[in-house]
Amino acid sequence: MSKRVTILGSTGSVGTSTVDLILNNPEAYDIQALTAQTNVDRLADQAIQLKAKRAVIGDETHYTALKNRLAGTGIDCAAGRAAVIEAASMPTDWTMAAIVGMAGLEPILAAIAQGQCVAIANKEPLVAAGPLVMAAARASGATLLPVDSEHNAVFQVFENENRAGIDRIILTASGGPFRTWTMDQMRAATPAQAVAHPNWIMGAKISVDSASMMNKALEIIEAHYLFAMPPEQIDVLVHPQSVIHSMVEYADGSVLAQLGAPDMRTPIAYTLGWPDRIRTSGQRLDLKTLSRLDFEQIDPVRFPSIPMAYDCLRAGPAHCIAFNAANEVAVAAFLGGQIGFYGIMDAVRYAVERVEKVDMSNLSDVLDFDGAVRDDTTAYMNSHHALKSA
Amino acid sequence: MSKRVTILGSTGSVGTSTVDLILNNPEAYDIQALTAQTNVDRLADQAIQLKAKRAVIGDETHYTALKNRLAGTGIDCAAGRAAVIEAASMPTDWTMAAIVGMAGLEPILAAIAQGQCVAIANKEPLVAAGPLVMAAARASGATLLPVDSEHNAVFQVFENENRAGIDRIILTASGGPFRTWTMDQMRAATPAQAVAHPNWIMGAKISVDSASMMNKALEIIEAHYLFAMPPEQIDVLVHPQSVIHSMVEYADGSVLAQLGAPDMRTPIAYTLGWPDRIRTSGQRLDLKTLSRLDFEQIDPVRFPSIPMAYDCLRAGPAHCIAFNAANEVAVAAFLGGQIGFYGIMDAVRYAVERVEKVDMSNLSDVLDFDGAVRDDTTAYMNSHHALKSA
Repeated sequence: MSKRVTILGSTGSVGTSTVDLILNNPEAYDIQALTAQTNVDRLADQAIQLKAKRAVIGDETHYTALKNRLAGTGIDCAAGRAAVIEAASMPTDWTMAAIVGMAGLEPILAAIAQGQCVAIANKEPLVAAGPLVMAAARASGATLLPVDSEHNAVFQVFENENRAGIDRIILTASGGPFRTWTMDQMRAATPAQAVAHPNWIMGAKISVDSASMMNKALEIIEAHYLFAMPPEQIDVLVHPQSVIHSMVEYADGSVLAQLGAPDMRTPIAYTLGWPDRIRTSGQRLDLKTLSRLDFEQIDPVRFPSIPMAYDCLRAGPAHCIAFNAANEVAVAAFLGGQIGFYGIMDAVRYAVERVEKVDMSNLSDVLDFDGAVRDDTTAYMNSHHALKSA
Repeated sequence: MSKRVTILGSTGSVGTSTVDLILNNPEAYDIQALTAQTNVDRLADQAIQLKAKRAVIGDETHYTALKNRLAGTGIDCAAGRAAVIEAASMPTDWTMAAIVGMAGLEPILAAIAQGQCVAIANKEPLVAAGPLVMAAARASGATLLPVDSEHNAVFQVFENENRAGIDRIILTASGGPFRTWTMDQMRAATPAQAVAHPNWIMGAKISVDSASMMNKALEIIEAHYLFAMPPEQIDVLVHPQSVIHSMVEYADGSVLAQLGAPDMRTPIAYTLGWPDRIRTSGQRLDLKTLSRLDFEQIDPVRFPSIPMAYDCLRAGPAHCIAFNAANEVAVAAFLGGQIGFYGIMDAVRYAVERVEKVDMSNLSDVLDFDGAVRDDTTAYMNSHHALKSA
């Protein structure tokens, strides 16, 4: 019995690792659909290599290129946003949701509607639409398997049948490249300095989020929804070596943890194998050379993203949307040289403080509000920047 | 529905902690029997406090004292070895097996025969009669819940349904009081130095075992039987802070661990609550002040007990019996000032090397051989000591 698999966002970092894991044991999987936004060449290569039933490119301008590359292979081709959502709806046993950003929300909801397993590597839909995503999973009976190393760690040691015995989730944080920097140093930090992550190789956006600890802040919100834990039962601890990926503390004093090398193949393989364990050729934790693990508290003054995340969770879903959306446009502005490093937090604070109680009961509410915050924050940064340079 | 509980060895350290945990929530438990070897006063106090049905004193000379203390309480009294075994046979849902030494073997087998839960705090029966104990559990369907902090940690993160995905058990070791000592220093070590354990408060025998790492060596054998893992899939790692109590490594690269304060109430509470988690007032791990965890490899030259444990496991059950029995008499001789610290290892090596393949298929084989090794090792130490002082 092979497992039917769909990969949404197959050409990115998580998608590519997922494909690698499948190629270790290709007979065990039956690939339904692969989707990508723009990388036609890699998508076509993957579709041929994995003998996928369908390949979908999000950006319609690449449709002809995809069709030509797949001519004669018997692989279905499609393009556009609706085709990606349709691909997510094709019957499957396991979906990797690895589209970047809010664009992943509708495909995730389509995958969840099938009531099977959905591996979630796409953070924004949970942060910005956590109540919708979780309600959809409850309605369909889908199992959400977190791919983020922290949430994957929590999932591995979270005794769902013993919820009353769970006191706390403890998310660990590497502390990022500015862990030991002063506020003045951070104020003057360049994009190049911010993307130099000490432990993980990641994209520019998530690297900046790691530098501001916004990544951890978003993970607090993600954990709240995924594990239905109130903010006061979610803690964060800086652990520079990134060996312990997160922990769960129980009423009897036990703290369970998952440890591993900083290799995304481990959490991806966990979700792909679940509820079994599959063997990977990924990097192993070398315990004999581990030598030392350190732990520190987070400094909420240098890293205001952390207290802001708790404030947003307590304030409600609209604040979480604003928190995420404003950060996304502000990080782009920082990477583009338009604002300084703490300009990101200024923009996020501006956006969050402007939120009035907004009803977020359906998908269009979420998407509309998300878009409005992005526009508004961009306008704020432009005027603020204009004032600064005046 | 209250849980029926029996405590074998209720006046020792583990027994007392078990009683404390029960007294946190006495309505949840219905105490069937308490047994102790000599401590009549504490046994009687516990029996009255817990409203036990029966109290049994192993040492028959204390029978009258017990009877007098419990007169008019309606609590059954009994004394002697057979009465302890009979108490272990009284119908119950959960038994704490906390008798010290080989004397616990027959009571454990009686408890296991009931097919319910048996918490195992008594190491020797597993080390010396692992095949018998595990066969009895398979036959009755009993669940064995390890109390030793290391095995309890492994149990908490051991996915029994995913055995094929388990690569290794990693037992952590504090390294004991002689972790950083040279061989010459250890050779001259006094009993007082050997019993000064850095992290745990324990009895003299187990403290000496910690100093020689014999405790960890016995735990390797215990883990082999409890988790049905071959010797090559059991590793030991020195971790001086004793915060990570042990780990399990999986095929996908995940390493799951249990962490906790050095407080035996945590593993005991885990076994008492299992499969639920109960709240304890025990010491909590303060992650915010954890600051640092270290890891080292064990030096097999200074600590020959570790390679010897693997050799014994590969050689078979008779070697494991000799390993444990010789150590017990040798530690007593060391504590009595008759032999030096490495004299313990000499005696153990002598006993293990003399083992010829012996059939250990039933209880009397085990007990007879165990007794023979003790006599023989004692004779060896006496003659060896005579030679030394000649």
